[in-house]
Formats: sequence, C-alpha cells, structure tokens
Amino acid sequence: MSARQEIISGADMRMTYADLNERIGRLACALRANGISEGMRVGVMDWDTHRYLECFFAVPMMGAVLHTINVRLAPAQVLYTINHGQPDLIIVHEDFMPLIDKIQSSFERNIKIVPIGNGKGYEDWIGDVPSSFNFPDFDENQTATLFYTTGTTGNPKGVSYSHRKLVLHTLGLIAGFGAVPGNAGFNRDDVYMPLTPLFHVHGWGFPYAMTLLGMRQVYPGRCSPDKILRLIASEGVTFSHCVPTILSMILDHPDSLGTDLSRWKVIIGGAALSRGLQERVRAAGISLHAAYGMSETCPFLTVADLSCDDPDLRSQTGYPGPLVDLRVVTPDMRDVPNDGETTGEVVVRAPWLTQGYLGDPEASDALWAGGYLHTGDVGYIRRDGSLQVTDRLKDVIKTGGEWISSLELEDIVSDCDGVAEVAAFGIPDERWGERPMVVVVKADDALGEEDIRSVVVGKVEQGRLSKWATPERIIFIQELPKTSVGKTDKKVLRAIYGGKS
Amino acid sequence: MSARQEIISGADMRMTYADLNERIGRLACALRANGISEGMRVGVMDWDTHRYLECFFAVPMMGAVLHTINVRLAPAQVLYTINHGQPDLIIVHEDFMPLIDKIQSSFERNIKIVPIGNGKGYEDWIGDVPSSFNFPDFDENQTATLFYTTGTTGNPKGVSYSHRKLVLHTLGLIAGFGAVPGNAGFNRDDVYMPLTPLFHVHGWGFPYAMTLLGMRQVYPGRCSPDKILRLIASEGVTFSHCVPTILSMILDHPDSLGTDLSRWKVIIGGAALSRGLQERVRAAGISLHAAYGMSETCPFLTVADLSCDDPDLRSQTGYPGPLVDLRVVTPDMRDVPNDGETTGEVVVRAPWLTQGYLGDPEASDALWAGGYLHTGDVGYIRRDGSLQVTDRLKDVIKTGGEWISSLELEDIVSDCDGVAEVAAFGIPDERWGERPMVVVVKADDALGEEDIRSVVVGKVEQGRLSKWATPERIIFIQELPKTSVGKTDKKVLRAIYGGKS
Repeated sequence: MSARQEIISGADMRMTYADLNERIGRLACALRANGISEGMRVGVMDWDTHRYLECFFAVPMMGAVLHTINVRLAPAQVLYTINHGQPDLIIVHEDFMPLIDKIQSSFERNIKIVPIGNGKGYEDWIGDVPSSFNFPDFDENQTATLFYTTGTTGNPKGVSYSHRKLVLHTLGLIAGFGAVPGNAGFNRDDVYMPLTPLFHVHGWGFPYAMTLLGMRQVYPGRCSPDKILRLIASEGVTFSHCVPTILSMILDHPDSLGTDLSRWKVIIGGAALSRGLQERVRAAGISLHAAYGMSETCPFLTVADLSCDDPDLRSQTGYPGPLVDLRVVTPDMRDVPNDGETTGEVVVRAPWLTQGYLGDPEASDALWAGGYLHTGDVGYIRRDGSLQVTDRLKDVIKTGGEWISSLELEDIVSDCDGVAEVAAFGIPDERWGERPMVVVVKADDALGEEDIRSVVVGKVEQGRLSKWATPERIIFIQELPKTSVGKTDKKVLRAIYGGKS
Repeated sequence: MSARQEIISGADMRMTYADLNERIGRLACALRANGISEGMRVGVMDWDTHRYLECFFAVPMMGAVLHTINVRLAPAQVLYTINHGQPDLIIVHEDFMPLIDKIQSSFERNIKIVPIGNGKGYEDWIGDVPSSFNFPDFDENQTATLFYTTGTTGNPKGVSYSHRKLVLHTLGLIAGFGAVPGNAGFNRDDVYMPLTPLFHVHGWGFPYAMTLLGMRQVYPGRCSPDKILRLIASEGVTFSHCVPTILSMILDHPDSLGTDLSRWKVIIGGAALSRGLQERVRAAGISLHAAYGMSETCPFLTVADLSCDDPDLRSQTGYPGPLVDLRVVTPDMRDVPNDGETTGEVVVRAPWLTQGYLGDPEASDALWAGGYLHTGDVGYIRRDGSLQVTDRLKDVIKTGGEWISSLELEDIVSDCDGVAEVAAFGIPDERWGERPMVVVVKADDALGEEDIRSVVVGKVEQGRLSKWATPERIIFIQELPKTSVGKTDKKVLRAIYGGKS
C-alpha cells in the first residue's frame, strides 16, 4: 500500500494515507482529551466523509466502541437508539444539531456533544492535539462497533461487532469478491466511492476492505445524483455499492446520459433488483454485482455477478463467501434438497456474525435458534451451490396453503411497459388467509390496471406463475413508502391496504 | 463453490469436490481405524497428488497433526525429522519405501507405516471404511501441521502452524494477491496446478486457498517438464507456483515451444529471479508474479507483479500483504528510512507466523528477538511502501566495510551472453574480510572469464556497481550444487572454495 495514495472527501478535502494515519492519531488524542477511554462509547452523526472513516479506525483502535447513529430514523427512534446504546460522547455535524436540540432533553444520561459545524470545527478539534497516539493492545474479542437495525417491527435492535469479527469480515469480503469470475475483485488501481450510508453496517464493511487494500477513496459527503455523477467523472470512480433505489435515481438523472459509466462496477444490496432496472444498468455499461447479507451478518454472505451473459447466473443471489456455512432449512432445521426449487429459510454460520441483540436475550436466542443465525429470508439452493433468495419470510404471500413470492410478482409487473416502481404484498382474506395485492407507480400516465393484469395472466397461462398469484387488487399510487435505508416499506403498505402491520 | 467442480490427479484420477468431501471423511475413518486420534501425528511421504490434498484436510480436521515429510532430504536428515517430529503413523508411496527400509531400524519410537503402493493401496485403504466422519470442534489454536525447514546450517528445524494461522493465511493470501493490479488474483474460472512440493510450507498455502475458492485443480504427481507442459495444455492450467529453477527447466524443454503459455500465470518464490529468466518468461507470454516469504512465515509476506510494463515495479520484491506488519531495521531494531536505498534486516509480524521452532527455545527466541520475526533477509523499502530484498543476511558479501549484494552481482553476470547459471558468494580474505567470488555454468562453450569480467567492469564504470564488487575469482563448473528445494546451496560453494561453511 502506498502511503501517498489519496483519499478525497467532498469538494475540498484531499489527503494521503500517511495523513489518514496521522489524523487517526489526532482524533484519538482529541477523544482522550474529552474523557474517552477504553470501553467507553463514541457516537457519530455525520455525512459520508473522511471524518467518518477516521472514526471507523480511531475509536475502535482506542479500545472504545464506535456507535454509528442512523440519522435517517424518526427523531423518537434516534432518541431510542441513543438512550439504549448509551454513548459517552457524540460527534455531530451541524446538519444534525437541530435533531440533537430536539431530543437532548430526553437523554437518560450525561452525554458530551461535540458539535463540528460544517466540518471546520472537527479540523480545529483534532488540530489542537498531538499527532500520535499510543494505541493499546487488547483482546480481539473486545467490542469495536455498535449500531441499530431498522427492523420493520418493534424498536430498533442493537447489533455489535468485535475487532476479530471486523478483521475476518474484511478478509472474507475481499476473498469472496475476488473469487467471482470477471471483474468483481478489487485491486489497488480501483477508485472507491461508497453510496451506502456509513452508519449502515459500516458501509457494508467496504471502507475497511478498501483501506486495507490501499485503494484511492472518494467520500461524497451529503449525496445527490448530480454530485455522484460529477465525482464519478472527475475522480475516475470505478467501484461503488448501493441499494437499487440509489442506482435508479442516478440513472434517472439527465446527467447520467453524458457520463461514462462503463468503467463503473456497482455492488447492489439491501433489496432485490427488478429486471427492468437490471436492463437499464446493462445498457449504461455498468458492471453489476449483487451482494446479500443483513445487519446481523456484518453483512457479507453471498455475491453474484449480474453482468455476466448467463441469465441463470444473473438472476441468482449468489455463491456463499469463504467461511460462510449457508443452509436452507425446514422449520425443524433439516436441509431442503439442493434442487433449485425446494424453498426453506436461509440460515448461516460464519466467524463474523453478530452474537445477538444488545440487552435482548430473547430476540438473540430466536436469532440463533438451533445454532444457526436465522436470516428470515426464504430461498432455495441450486445444484451448483448458488443461493436464490425468493422472499422475506414475512413477505411471502400465503394464500390457500400456497406460498407466493412477492418478488417474483414484482419482477413480472416491473417488466410491463409504463411501470416505474411496484410493490406486491399479502392482504388478509377470510377464505384464503391472504391474497396478493400490487401497488404501482406509473412512468406513463396511459398505463391501466388491465395492462398489468393481462401481463400477469399471460405468465399464468405460460405456467410461469401460479394462478393463485393473480393479484386480488391492483392500484396506482404517486410514490412508494420507503424505510430509512431506502427499501420499500411493506409494513406501511400492509397497514394502509390490509388493515394490519 | 460448485460441488461438481473437478479435481484431477495425475493421468487417471478425476473427482468432484463432493467426492473430495467424502474421501476426506473416508481418510479420517481409515486413520481412526489405525489408532489415530486427536493430538497424534500423521506423516506423509508422497508425490503431489490428490492423496496429499486429502491429508491436508482430513488429518488437521480430526484434531491430529499433519507432518509433511521432506522426501528430498538426505536419508540421515529424513530420519532426523522423523525422530524429532515423532509421527505415530506415516503414509508412504512405494517410491519412498526403499528410503523407509533404509532408516526404519533407527526409528526411536514405534511408528505405524501405511504403504500405499503406487496409490492403489490408498484407494483400497480408504475404500474399506465408512464415507463420513464426525469431525470434532476444538480450539482454533490447536496445532494443525508440522514440517521441517531445510536450513543451510545445522539440523532441520521443526515449524508448526495452528488451524487459526492456516485460516488467516489462506484469507490473507487470496486478499493479498487480489490487491495487485492486473490478473494476480484468482477466481473460480482459474485452473490451478501446484509445482512446488506439497511438503514445502503446505505448497506455499495455495492448495488451501484454491480449495476455498472452489477452483478446478490439477495435481501433477511426480513431475517432469514434459508432463507439466502436457497437463498445462490438456487441462487448461492457468495458474501455478514454483521456484525459478523449475520454470527454467520448463522453458528449456523443447515442448515449451509448441505449448501455448499465454494464459498461464506463475507465482515465483523461494529464490530471486535472474533478469535473463525474467525476459524469457515475458517472451513466452507468461504472466509472472513474485511472492516473498519463508517456511517460518507460512509463507506469504509480499507479492509483486513482474509482468507489468514498469521496470521499477518489475524489479521489486513487492507490497506487504494484508495484516503483514513489515519493517526494515538496524541491528538495534530502529526503522531505516523508507528511501529506496538504506538497507537493513527485514522483520515482520502477521497473524500467521510460526511461534518458534519445535523443541528449540533458544532458536525460537532468536527468531522473535525484539517482538518481530527475523527473516534473515537484507533489503530496503521504497517511498511507495514496496520492499526490495537485496540479499540473505548471511549471503551479503562483506568486503572492507562495504556490503555487496550477491544477488546484484549474479543478476549482472546472468545478463552476460553464454551464461546459463551463476552463483556469487564471499570467500575469506585476510585484508578485506571477504572478497566476492563467482561460479558460472556455461550455456556456450566459447564463454571465457574475460567476457564476464568485462561486463562487470563495464557496470562499475557506469557507476551501477561498487568497485569492491569486482569478483576476486571467476570459475566455470558443470553444475551448481542445489538444496533439496532447488535453491543454489551456497553453503556447499563456500565450503569448497572458501574453506569454511
């Protein structure tokens, strides 16, 4: 790794890896000067900047715990995660000070707030202290990070990772992506820009991997599609990761037509990719891979090459990464046959999975029932060992004893001309238990319910879809409700249209 | 990974990964039936076959220790390693039974010998037992493997590795090679054939990495250049590793001219590559990388891309792999400046280094003096962080207070027309301490001492070489003495020409 390699943050910050090393020492000194010592917790509320990267290293390296606060949650939920996570200090960008002002009076303990303005305050803060810190040795099982999952039910749950788990995840991530034929692997010539918030599962673990490899890195700060496109062009970004919604927003932006995206490889995760978006990505020349995982899995579990020419390979969740022991099982934990069709729940073991939820032994036991972590996802394994996730366990539509994949229904509807976005889910039905419902955002005003219904019926007649999957209701709405990380919020849809959450 | 991916061994053995899994279970059952249990030691004396790969997994997975016996040592040394390593059982190919017959009466303990004939005996042995074994869980720090370094002084020394170290080395190796721009990384589409004996530092750790990635693998059995060339062509081998001597033998073979080597990438290690050989490799279209390490380091430390167009990058030992803390230090362990010229000893830390020599606390303490593993190599670090090894500490020629690099002298002489092989070393000198001597194997009978001397003097006049480096003696011999792993044995040369070892 070159000490002279550059890290770029926003429009005006450029530094080398040697600078990063010095700044990590300074940040640790500043934190110590503010009373932080081993075992204490440091919260961060900031955009995706070099400051966040520095916190990724300095806080755990001191032996303290980095609490990456999800700033997109509702204020009451942010307050909940702070009171539950009990940070001793929080570093806060000025854009999040109004939020702090709103909730600070309800803090259940004394928390030191370090306001850093638009970032200049941070520079002053770490500028005033020595440039080197004598980082201690400690047990590799010491907790390094803490964050909260944005579950679709109940309060957010605290998930934490040790140093050991982060190191093994970092190596497993690099080795796992490197194993995919084509250009999924990363090397020192790649230029990295995260498009997943860094508070979300450590930016999926990529900032640790990219720093280990000594790659040129670009931190976008507060993101917008035009800014992302500008940075891709000006900094020569070749590698990013994001949820499909972000990729869709980038391709929707008029500047995308004038930007060369043919050197860009993108890892998609967090939600399934519709066939329609997949085709648009291919047309733009983007090299597309899918990763599968969740907050509780650090997150890497599987990777698939969506840019290859084989449609079977393109439509898969992917191959398990190294050291990932992945099974698809019946409710009593027996393996389903690897026949490419029998579905069951995806359960996993790997040396980087979380051990449970902070202060919630009951949910932790449920997560690890039978000695495997339960993903709550439904899928099948092909004969070649690759996984296909078909649904969230709770998003499967159970109608008359049949399980219908909401993702499959969404895929078919998204192929229909004039459909911009779609969500399928179950609504209660006295006779069948549940019946499928589809809500659609139009890209073309001329689109009607019958257009969609005839596409679905066509697939049923072709035998591609169970007749039970024909939607009970199809309605059009202006916009799909989204969770804080940009996924369609089916809990809200079920509450509105099904009378239950 | 696909359970249907193939592993090929020699001319007549083909199996899938699913078969490998079953055979590992069978081998463990056969070993248990022969009294092997957790903590016991199992020796192997075999060629580079699927059987060895099966031992790589079955023995450590049982909780036993795999002792990979170096069959190229002199019989007295093989006996020494067996009496020192104390295996409980040794699996022996018929080609090594004469060696066993010679030394068996001197075994200091009762050792069960399992003769496997030409391999058929092995098939019968594991064919008679159940196909599954209930592999136990145990502490990751349990010893997995043991082998003996072929040091150039004294008796061989026992080096052992735990499961934890092997797993971390495997991930570090894949991640480290993946970080090199170009095509150093491996992926599931590569076809692997080892050309380093599997008893030599677990085949440099590659069989573990390739199996983890689910790659097609080819085991050559007893090697010869024509057989290697045939397998490259018939099995589509794209990736191998070896010492320079082997690569040289392959390129010397007439069949190399008719074999397409342009898809082959080769990792060179174990010795420095002469510029002459490097040019021949480039001309053949082989993609060449160099790895640096030693028996005590599992072995991966650094990697360099020797096929890139930048001559500075080509001539380097390489960049340290992930988690490798590599320093170049003075005798009192202070870092030398990273200026690309100041030399010192290379010392390292990494989570996969051996903890010491079996039953030799004194040598172990010397190995780890000052908390870093001492490689015994001399080199410098460039400003970009890459390492250049210039010599073995003991191979540096110390003349009149100057340190002369024997490798540099060898490089210059090897560029001289008509030179096939060369070795440079120091011979005792009353006035200067040591003076350089060069022994040369001719490729062209017309070559004379003056041809070599004029090339060396030319480099001195150009300022490329210190005048102290002008050889005191230049002589021609038929063949260079080699160690059991194919390196030039300078200990022998010094004994013959210098009157000391």
